[in-house]
Amino acid sequence: MLKAKIFVQLKASVLDPQGKAVTNSLHHLGFDEVLETRISKYIEMTFADNDRARVTEQVEKICDSLLANPNTESYHFQLDYQE
Amino acid sequence: MLKAKIFVQLKASVLDPQGKAVTNSLHHLGFDEVLETRISKYIEMTFADNDRARVTEQVEKICDSLLANPNTESYHFQLDYQE
Repeated sequence: MLKAKIFVQLKASVLDPQGKAVTNSLHHLGFDEVLETRISKYIEMTFADNDRARVTEQVEKICDSLLANPNTESYHFQLDYQE
Repeated sequence: MLKAKIFVQLKASVLDPQGKAVTNSLHHLGFDEVLETRISKYIEMTFADNDRARVTEQVEKICDSLLANPNTESYHFQLDYQE
């Protein structure tokens, strides 16, 4: 088996209103040292396949078609072997 | 500045309905090799402080009080220096 560890993040140029809301809440709670918060998705996906090239291609297709919004988000991932 | 890279994940024993829905969608789309999907939050938070011990303590308080649900989620993080 292979496990894909996928990060789907807003592009740096895109405002993150959820992160901004967390930063504001933290300031109200007294955490004044927090400058910025960016909230992203982290997805672990296991595949019944040990072929890295084939799984890489599948993960790219899955990110492009389902997990990431190409207008606002970018993604990167790594593959690890699993028992 | 220090940047905290925080993972907030459902505990292994907790069902992930959003991940299950993604797995089902992928099977319908023909990605039959996908066995399981777990969806988590990945949060990057920058601090105007270079003291690792102090920021570690702050991140733990922030996770406990705001970012993670202690009943269903666990978290871990690392700190990196930023320019």
